[in-house]
Amino acid sequence: MGIIAGGGALPARLAAAAKTAGRAVFVVKLDGHANDDDLDSYPNVTVRLGAAAKILDAMRSHECQDVVLAGKVVRPSFSAMRPDWRATKLLMKVGMKALGDDGLLRLVGEELEREGFRLVGAHEILTDLAVPEGVLGTIKPDEQALSDAKHGLAVARTLGAADVGQGCVVQQGLVLALEAIEGTDEMVRRSANYRREGVGGVLVKSSKPQQDKRLDLPAIGLTTIEEAHKSGLRGVALLAGGTMIIDRDAVIARANDLGLFVIGLAGPDKDVEHGV
Amino acid sequence: MGIIAGGGALPARLAAAAKTAGRAVFVVKLDGHANDDDLDSYPNVTVRLGAAAKILDAMRSHECQDVVLAGKVVRPSFSAMRPDWRATKLLMKVGMKALGDDGLLRLVGEELEREGFRLVGAHEILTDLAVPEGVLGTIKPDEQALSDAKHGLAVARTLGAADVGQGCVVQQGLVLALEAIEGTDEMVRRSANYRREGVGGVLVKSSKPQQDKRLDLPAIGLTTIEEAHKSGLRGVALLAGGTMIIDRDAVIARANDLGLFVIGLAGPDKDVEHGV
Repeated sequence: MGIIAGGGALPARLAAAAKTAGRAVFVVKLDGHANDDDLDSYPNVTVRLGAAAKILDAMRSHECQDVVLAGKVVRPSFSAMRPDWRATKLLMKVGMKALGDDGLLRLVGEELEREGFRLVGAHEILTDLAVPEGVLGTIKPDEQALSDAKHGLAVARTLGAADVGQGCVVQQGLVLALEAIEGTDEMVRRSANYRREGVGGVLVKSSKPQQDKRLDLPAIGLTTIEEAHKSGLRGVALLAGGTMIIDRDAVIARANDLGLFVIGLAGPDKDVEHGV
Repeated sequence: MGIIAGGGALPARLAAAAKTAGRAVFVVKLDGHANDDDLDSYPNVTVRLGAAAKILDAMRSHECQDVVLAGKVVRPSFSAMRPDWRATKLLMKVGMKALGDDGLLRLVGEELEREGFRLVGAHEILTDLAVPEGVLGTIKPDEQALSDAKHGLAVARTLGAADVGQGCVVQQGLVLALEAIEGTDEMVRRSANYRREGVGGVLVKSSKPQQDKRLDLPAIGLTTIEEAHKSGLRGVALLAGGTMIIDRDAVIARANDLGLFVIGLAGPDKDVEHGV
């Protein structure tokens, strides 16, 4: 199994799970993104994001069949990416200018399949990653928090439809912060500056309506819970089936300790998504 | 003429223009929002946002017929607003929880008309406020900047449709920052942290598709140009007819000096809006 690894803890978790299942693992560490030292215990190579040919060659020479893309990848500008001929050809197809924040990943996924690899979702390997519907911990959201969560989900979905961020912070109906490229934790920290009097807000994470679930679903982890608590939020609402929790047991335990709720919400467009 | 004044320079400009036109002016300064000392040269009263009855009484006792709402107003939480009975009655009608960021203004506008006042838009008094279509200064956007501007406009309109912020910063197709409640200048400053290599980005401001043009259209001023320059942006794109420039001549002159373009763009939903 090949793992194309971005930042955060997810890639190493996947590698460990695959190894435990008796599979051979090869890791392509994306330069400037992959930052988990645990990845070095597997055969690996470090490649920059723009070096598409090198990524494909490395995975082929290590006889990867399944490929999973995992971890945080921030799309660089065209000039920072320094695409090789292979990546340039790929980018020419869609036009770099028109590319939304997720367009690049989708493109990579399609290209991998065209090259004969089988694209696998992280949630197919770590089955507890996907967020189920309902309250996940011991803390339950009250009526205001639930209303904030639902409003936030609608806002995040709208954002996602424009291929931008997938998160926001809502307090008493007010959207305190919207996530673009800065990442969830940064956005949560910022939201504390705009906090209003009264009961605290809710962090909401969604996926984009058009998102391929095998590609980099939005994920939260322990840090997210810690930051949410520090910023005075009362809980986290996640799109059920469209987001991931890394280390669910630890995350829920910590949320319980800190008095934060964690809830999986069905999407507003649940019926449309049925069967995806 | 009554002016319900929020923050920034616009309310005092309106007062001056009305006075020059020979009209009597009465100013309701919103506590914690109105911050221009020039307003004190007009008959005025300071009232907190939640004191709806006091605002209506003051305007009636000063025989205001036309009322204009102008300046930055950040919607407080319900508890911070401390609504009086009149405001509470108003809020009960719609349900505070369901209120978007602009819903409050819309509500105030409707109520003023119901009470017999004539609601007037700031752009009807200061006719050079409204942004026309086309390049406004001497600097022209290049192809990439124009593409970023159009992408940003689509994103900002999508945001606006969800009754959230109306601004974003786009660089080479990447949305670096989205505006929620923090205000345009804060968002522009933040975007500098996420700047990518290569040519700089564009600040885009739009109004919401459903926005009543008599109520608080998004505005930029000199500070916006200064902040955009400091953050490495190459220009500002504004929805033509849906945004305002305060002190247009000074703003354009400064943008020219700093090498920033300022452009008015027709909305993607121009046809739909026709006649509004």
